[in-house]
Amino acid sequence: MSSVETRPEQTGSSLIPTLPGAHYTDPAIFELEQSRIFQAHWFAVARGSDLPTAGNFRKVDVGGESVLLVRGRDGALRAFLNVCRHRGAQLCVEDSGSVRRNLQCPYHAWTYGLDGSLVAAPNLNSMADVDRKEYGLIPVALREWLGTAWVCLADEPPSFEETVQGAVTARLGDPAAIDGWGIDTLVVGRRIVYDVKANWKLIVENFMECYHCATIHPELTEVLPEFADGYAAQYYVGHGAEFGDEVAGFTVDGRAGFDTLSGVGENHDRRYYAITVNPQVFINLVPDHVIFHRMYPMAVDRTIVECDWLYPQEVVDSGADLAHSVELFHRVNQQDFDACERCQPAMSSKAYAKGGVLVPSEHHIGEFRDWAAAAIS
Amino acid sequence: MSSVETRPEQTGSSLIPTLPGAHYTDPAIFELEQSRIFQAHWFAVARGSDLPTAGNFRKVDVGGESVLLVRGRDGALRAFLNVCRHRGAQLCVEDSGSVRRNLQCPYHAWTYGLDGSLVAAPNLNSMADVDRKEYGLIPVALREWLGTAWVCLADEPPSFEETVQGAVTARLGDPAAIDGWGIDTLVVGRRIVYDVKANWKLIVENFMECYHCATIHPELTEVLPEFADGYAAQYYVGHGAEFGDEVAGFTVDGRAGFDTLSGVGENHDRRYYAITVNPQVFINLVPDHVIFHRMYPMAVDRTIVECDWLYPQEVVDSGADLAHSVELFHRVNQQDFDACERCQPAMSSKAYAKGGVLVPSEHHIGEFRDWAAAAIS
Amino acid sequence: MSSVETRPEQTGSSLIPTLPGAHYTDPAIFELEQSRIFQAHWFAVARGSDLPTAGNFRKVDVGGESVLLVRGRDGALRAFLNVCRHRGAQLCVEDSGSVRRNLQCPYHAWTYGLDGSLVAAPNLNSMADVDRKEYGLIPVALREWLGTAWVCLADEPPSFEETVQGAVTARLGDPAAIDGWGIDTLVVGRRIVYDVKANWKLIVENFMECYHCATIHPELTEVLPEFADGYAAQYYVGHGAEFGDEVAGFTVDGRAGFDTLSGVGENHDRRYYAITVNPQVFINLVPDHVIFHRMYPMAVDRTIVECDWLYPQEVVDSGADLAHSVELFHRVNQQDFDACERCQPAMSSKAYAKGGVLVPSEHHIGEFRDWAAAAIS
Repeated sequence: MSSVETRPEQTGSSLIPTLPGAHYTDPAIFELEQSRIFQAHWFAVARGSDLPTAGNFRKVDVGGESVLLVRGRDGALRAFLNVCRHRGAQLCVEDSGSVRRNLQCPYHAWTYGLDGSLVAAPNLNSMADVDRKEYGLIPVALREWLGTAWVCLADEPPSFEETVQGAVTARLGDPAAIDGWGIDTLVVGRRIVYDVKANWKLIVENFMECYHCATIHPELTEVLPEFADGYAAQYYVGHGAEFGDEVAGFTVDGRAGFDTLSGVGENHDRRYYAITVNPQVFINLVPDHVIFHRMYPMAVDRTIVECDWLYPQEVVDSGADLAHSVELFHRVNQQDFDACERCQPAMSSKAYAKGGVLVPSEHHIGEFRDWAAAAIS
Repeated sequence: MSSVETRPEQTGSSLIPTLPGAHYTDPAIFELEQSRIFQAHWFAVARGSDLPTAGNFRKVDVGGESVLLVRGRDGALRAFLNVCRHRGAQLCVEDSGSVRRNLQCPYHAWTYGLDGSLVAAPNLNSMADVDRKEYGLIPVALREWLGTAWVCLADEPPSFEETVQGAVTARLGDPAAIDGWGIDTLVVGRRIVYDVKANWKLIVENFMECYHCATIHPELTEVLPEFADGYAAQYYVGHGAEFGDEVAGFTVDGRAGFDTLSGVGENHDRRYYAITVNPQVFINLVPDHVIFHRMYPMAVDRTIVECDWLYPQEVVDSGADLAHSVELFHRVNQQDFDACERCQPAMSSKAYAKGGVLVPSEHHIGEFRDWAAAAIS
Repeated sequence: MSSVETRPEQTGSSLIPTLPGAHYTDPAIFELEQSRIFQAHWFAVARGSDLPTAGNFRKVDVGGESVLLVRGRDGALRAFLNVCRHRGAQLCVEDSGSVRRNLQCPYHAWTYGLDGSLVAAPNLNSMADVDRKEYGLIPVALREWLGTAWVCLADEPPSFEETVQGAVTARLGDPAAIDGWGIDTLVVGRRIVYDVKANWKLIVENFMECYHCATIHPELTEVLPEFADGYAAQYYVGHGAEFGDEVAGFTVDGRAGFDTLSGVGENHDRRYYAITVNPQVFINLVPDHVIFHRMYPMAVDRTIVECDWLYPQEVVDSGADLAHSVELFHRVNQQDFDACERCQPAMSSKAYAKGGVLVPSEHHIGEFRDWAAAAIS
């Protein structure tokens, strides 16, 4: 595969509109997005390796619902609504933990297997007409890909292949390209959680463009000099931004990183790729590691971002210092989230009632804009 | 009077529905409940002994209204809206206190007698056409029973006899039964105030059933072994749960309590009774004391519970250690309120959109459910 | 000019109604007031001297909008919406500060002159069809008077002469009277900012009447004995409340203040004047200084009040102790704001659903009541 480096032709005005400000401030629009976007699409919630053994659980917020991930005794990962079917107590209130054999509600001791089935309850045997199957935990669809658990709260989830995998293919230009990084074999070297006081769409829009790179990302622009021109890697299909000539690795000061991942070919070496999987995943591919962001929209003006830096097992086991490697994108994240937080208060201004504008190097954000607006209309 | 120990016959499905989740989370429903339940019914606000002498006042929240209780110079307890008729300043901002002869607004010095009448105001004499009676404090209906002050904000309060006293009779099966405990002669040995992050109806429903007792109340089940079966005292008319054979008193470790109250006959000795008076009072009767709960719903997801442990004057005066006596139900309260707080977040889940289910030993909660739903429909 | 001391004739009932309680508690009414009152009228935001040199800026909240005041290189003060035209970042997030030559958005480096014009942006030259004038900062109307900057967010601001200057004339009875205090030549000796948990209209109504003076303002009534009668200076046209015979100056203990301002004639000496300029300015004139309040309504139940004590430059430069001079009205402010905060919680009571009442010495508040109600109807 070779990069396609032709810039899409500009058509029409060089400044086209963003979403109106209300889309970033109106709680009613956020509620619609929760149900029609975050509950309706595949939503990445964890690394599978976060729950290595049977009985491990993890509680996550998906579109306003508390979802429980559980590793079963058969080794499979499953997801359920975190609500006892009897009187509605939350089964788990800790963010994560482990149980032995069952999930037992601490209120009336209704007891569920790790597969969600109702296995016991006080006096249950005397309730002859109760169908235990009917009162199992409510299951949530789950898929694993790229070492990541994705769940979907929709009754009929959209095609995982067309939406999640399709988004990755659309960016890289080739369905097999992503395999080179072997993301499912990588492990979490570092996880940082950011609490961002901004609407989730500001964060997506920020991630999609690089018109801001020269202004707010000095370290990143040093490593990827072409970003100084303002064209994001996502502007092109299959394009990876090239490292600067003097740059030895994707690190905060350009020093060498780790060995190139074994599956990353020469055409992808010394390059940086960025992928957005709507609505809440960003993936950065560099030769020696992968940066994987999962967003959790908490309110119209607040978003949690959980970011994993993924490395080969042997790099993490070696005890090598990851600091210079992690620090580059950690700074980028901080710089980006500061910018998003600076925009949020102005979204309610009458100056932004009809929205702002996108310059040519941001025009591809228009697709996201249209997708987000259509989803709630 | 003898206990009626026949269990009501089960009809229909063994699992019947609770209220839908929105009834526990929707602020609009809570506002309806404030006006149609808490302002419309008799609402217990204090022990009369909290205001022993003329000029004593106490400020309480009743259905969102600030109500002022005042002990008059004639010894009578009265209640008023805590609002100056002139420009609306709160007459009292402290939770309780004492005034000498009058209630004077600290803003413009409008002055009201302890009976609520407007007695003075600067330049009032020059306002010839002002009818002082028209500008007295707005009175709130008040009744005293069981040593407790009950107020009602309705223009035409419902029958105290039918609602409050009727609820006690319906539970004990005999209008005279409650007299044995001489509640109006008891005094507050201990008062504990709980701030519960849960809807008030979760607290009522919890209080009404004992299906949870085996799971969350080890101390209580030790004292009242029949509770391990999951049937609450409230499940039966006139039934008192019997103390265990080895149990000497209603204390946290089953040790002896105090002398049985003089009016409590043998048929009520070594027994525990629980009474719910809709919408916000719970009473527990045990041989040597009474536990009296008053709930104050503050928001759809927050309720203040004020709990009094009541003993004979001589017990309190003796300086006896009340700790083992108080500790039992204090632990029960903590265990119950923890459970309620665990349910509250799940009430907004789509898993609870149509509510949860009641097992047979909880079916009597269905009456409360229907009462609460009808009140706002 | 001589004072007109005839009291307006009383007509009708001696007690007339205030606004209904909802006007002080309903967020929807507050939002209407933000757009139809605070964005529609001239709104005082700063002393011009707060921004002495080119590049100085100050960020202020006007009716929910973030407005940027900027001193230009030509010496003129200008106001703009604090929103970048590109993607909506706030240009300034600090309350005040200084820039060198331009206002540069820290997100994508769009750069505006101090006059608001778009002067540069990355790649702007390649966007041939972009009209830079169209993308300048959005200007806000600005007037300077009494050393104060007043802005108006309306597309067509009302007449400054008729509204702001007209209000001052209506109070003093003579358009030239205010000139005697030379307010534009005075400087800020002390600024105190109050965060008041009350609706802005409670603060206006409090400022307009003196029926409360005897009750809550002992120091002020000592200095201005006629206030003990309950008639505010604002009750009469052109009336200044006279200092007590023993009073040497407008100070907390009646000791001498500073020299009478050079332009204040004998007819205004030893007198106190109070002016309300709707919707958010109060001015107090005393012989040796001026007290200037600017209110910023932040929520239906919260108002920021910024109060300046203004003195001649030479008084401030002399290093004279201003404490006794400032302390008098600082105490008055605290006493007033305490009273307003005491009223706020009662505004939602059913006792105030139709409002409270105004006594004869408060009847002029009825004009404000009608003005405020008409503005949002």
